Amino acid sequence: MKTMQVDVAVIGAGTAGLTAYRAAKAAGASAAIIEGGDYGTTCARVGCMPSKLLIAAADAAHAVGKAPDFGIHVDGIIRIDGREVMDRVRRERDRFVGFALREVQGIPDADRIRGHARFVNNHTIAVADHTRVAAKSVIIATGSRADYPDSFKALGDRLIISDDVFDWTDLPKAVAVIGPGIIGLELGQALHRLGVHVAVLGRGGRVGPISDPEIRAYALAAFNEEFTLEPDAHIAHMRRHGDRVAIGRTAPGGSGEIEHFDYILAATGRTPNIKGIGLENTTLKLDAKGVPSFDPMTTRTASADGASPIFIAGDASNFIPLLHEAADEGRIAGKNAARLALGKQVNPALRRAPIGVVFTDPQIGIVGGGFHSMKPGTFATGQVSFEDQGRSRILLKNKGLLNVYADLATGRFLGAEMLAPAAEHLAHLLAWALQNKMTVAQMLEMPFYHPVIEEGLRTALHDLDVKLRAAQANLGKAA
Amino acid sequence: MKTMQVDVAVIGAGTAGLTAYRAAKAAGASAAIIEGGDYGTTCARVGCMPSKLLIAAADAAHAVGKAPDFGIHVDGIIRIDGREVMDRVRRERDRFVGFALREVQGIPDADRIRGHARFVNNHTIAVADHTRVAAKSVIIATGSRADYPDSFKALGDRLIISDDVFDWTDLPKAVAVIGPGIIGLELGQALHRLGVHVAVLGRGGRVGPISDPEIRAYALAAFNEEFTLEPDAHIAHMRRHGDRVAIGRTAPGGSGEIEHFDYILAATGRTPNIKGIGLENTTLKLDAKGVPSFDPMTTRTASADGASPIFIAGDASNFIPLLHEAADEGRIAGKNAARLALGKQVNPALRRAPIGVVFTDPQIGIVGGGFHSMKPGTFATGQVSFEDQGRSRILLKNKGLLNVYADLATGRFLGAEMLAPAAEHLAHLLAWALQNKMTVAQMLEMPFYHPVIEEGLRTALHDLDVKLRAAQANLGKAA
Repeated sequence: MKTMQVDVAVIGAGTAGLTAYRAAKAAGASAAIIEGGDYGTTCARVGCMPSKLLIAAADAAHAVGKAPDFGIHVDGIIRIDGREVMDRVRRERDRFVGFALREVQGIPDADRIRGHARFVNNHTIAVADHTRVAAKSVIIATGSRADYPDSFKALGDRLIISDDVFDWTDLPKAVAVIGPGIIGLELGQALHRLGVHVAVLGRGGRVGPISDPEIRAYALAAFNEEFTLEPDAHIAHMRRHGDRVAIGRTAPGGSGEIEHFDYILAATGRTPNIKGIGLENTTLKLDAKGVPSFDPMTTRTASADGASPIFIAGDASNFIPLLHEAADEGRIAGKNAARLALGKQVNPALRRAPIGVVFTDPQIGIVGGGFHSMKPGTFATGQVSFEDQGRSRILLKNKGLLNVYADLATGRFLGAEMLAPAAEHLAHLLAWALQNKMTVAQMLEMPFYHPVIEEGLRTALHDLDVKLRAAQANLGKAA
Repeated sequence: MKTMQVDVAVIGAGTAGLTAYRAAKAAGASAAIIEGGDYGTTCARVGCMPSKLLIAAADAAHAVGKAPDFGIHVDGIIRIDGREVMDRVRRERDRFVGFALREVQGIPDADRIRGHARFVNNHTIAVADHTRVAAKSVIIATGSRADYPDSFKALGDRLIISDDVFDWTDLPKAVAVIGPGIIGLELGQALHRLGVHVAVLGRGGRVGPISDPEIRAYALAAFNEEFTLEPDAHIAHMRRHGDRVAIGRTAPGGSGEIEHFDYILAATGRTPNIKGIGLENTTLKLDAKGVPSFDPMTTRTASADGASPIFIAGDASNFIPLLHEAADEGRIAGKNAARLALGKQVNPALRRAPIGVVFTDPQIGIVGGGFHSMKPGTFATGQVSFEDQGRSRILLKNKGLLNVYADLATGRFLGAEMLAPAAEHLAHLLAWALQNKMTVAQMLEMPFYHPVIEEGLRTALHDLDVKLRAAQANLGKAA
């Protein structure tokens, strides 16, 4: 067995790991990056990029279907060529993966170690059976994987996860998506728009990351106009039936209904890849799910005695499984791990205003901690419906509801939840305003062009402003 | 002749006038609003709204044409039904006009005066031959109209302006658009995408509102991939030829070329409606074009002796002919005219960060005063091409170039010019950053989701940041 000594060992060569490695080197440390699986990031291989490619095709098909409302007719048949659709998805996916691979290839051979990593102790990692890495500090950046209940396994090869979709060479006829989270909603709607019969079924009522009951109810109704979305479905059984799967649902009335699908797509969540990496050989404090406790500002994990030389970044931390956050965490972890190894102080770093986007149509946008994070009675809500919003109506995208929140005492903008056209853009405008600590009054002093979807946001801010003023007037009276 | 006394008289019931009237009343003044033409705003009748409706149809047709690149095929014929296209444009236009009319109807009869207004002196307006209005202050909000050289008139009914397009009941076969300004580019590209043979011809090389030569060159090439755009065309003659118009162009090589069109669309600019309103009977100082000089912060015009009771707002001022600016100016004028009438002080008001959007595809966006407003040597430029930008490529919208500018001494963001996908949204993000006086370094601390078009903007800001740091390092050396 080879031995190796470095300042910083990074476990995992995905987005967080690659960023951490670069940051550690930039901070003057020696570093090694260990990868046990294929190179290439979750985002490029099976995440953001291929899902957005599938959605782009789905939206193209949807746009063709909507064109007659503008006076543009197709005299003939709209044919969705599943092979071509999936060919573009895989081809462009491979191109994005290629960028990730090129980045790995740019790392000196001496710093790259292949094989499964396992902690021997806080400072020592065994890689497969060939290398022992002694490191002054370690970064866990092992990512996450799709997870589902064991009972699903009986479905055999009819059970798939989102990863599998992007290797399809053609589209199936019918898919049941279990789990109306971000991935379930995105893939469910996209497959529906590509002509696949889809039902998105869940338990507990969750609709994506929405926590505001008004926005959730609106989204539920809006999606159901297009495809079956039952976030609180009563699934009596789910059984293999020849080459297909039969799902029996208990209808609210009591009569059962059985439907057949080619695949069950388990979109029931992701779990950090932290099993089997020898955390039990470290001194780390683990939470109830077995994930190391850590400080998001420094990414440093905690031992029983407080100080740990181990950092954690990206999906492995189960914190915010988003690419831009993984990159930030990788940067913070790499820099701090290097500083610790070089005898310097570990520093808290910038965390950006929270922003979340689901690329459905309309899109879902969440800015700030979301409705559920705020204390009732401390905030006011402003609202706009996009159903009569000028620009949205021009584009025939006039579906959506947006709630903006502000602190009653200070008038400070706190965040937003929305199902809205162009939510990916509105969410940026709002997240920047949040990070800039703007008040609602200041936001209303900003320019809004005409005619734009942002004018809908202004309507919601006006509504919020009126409520804030009323509340302040009441406070004045009470005083 | 009836006589009437008010605190504030508003001439013109368009966007600026209506806003001014409301603001004057809200400030406690009595007010009258005079309209000589049809009610309804330029924006709703012949401006922003109908043009965006036409563009929405054009983009729908374009999307159908692009669908095969995603694997979505039309086995048959794509038929652009000109009657249906124009029917939706007119129907929705009428709906938007209806909102404007309803607003007018909400004004008490006693405050509304119909007829052509003409100044008798600074404080007196004659309306047609029936009313004489004595006002403590007056607001000119007479708007603007399309303007073209007298020589065009020989084309008779083959000569049209943008207003006429929105009354079409069907699409013509071929249109030459003279003037590649905002309206010319928007309508030219839209008509082209709706199957009309189009040539957009200009003189002097201007491409919309772009002043940055790099962005201009890129835009010129990009538009020319799709339709003929000659911003510096050599038109030898333009003659009526039966039911059509023949345009003879001198090619760079010398050989002439004659092309026939159904219409010549004069998009050669707009002129404020200030002729024939008796400005010669006031004491106002006029600029070279006959437009009253005024202070944009108060909207108050100037007399030879400094103080004038007359304000000006909206397109009539020839300042920034955009709806949101007209509304702001109306608000400022109404409030200040009321204050003056009530013996209070006239106050400077908030002007928002400049933002301009052209709804072509890709869109043009201008934030701040634009390239031409900055002093060479005082600023740095960061750039991104959207041709390889991830999200843009996913959407097959990967065409565009964006330049961002910052002050070399302070690192403060100064503005941007772009031809870019989603420029209407990027421009808002940047205009808010400009009004918030952000530095480029601060902008890079803001969240950028993945994968989004805003990441392209981040690339440009990174590029700008590197240049600012290099310049500051050089300054350090020099010191």
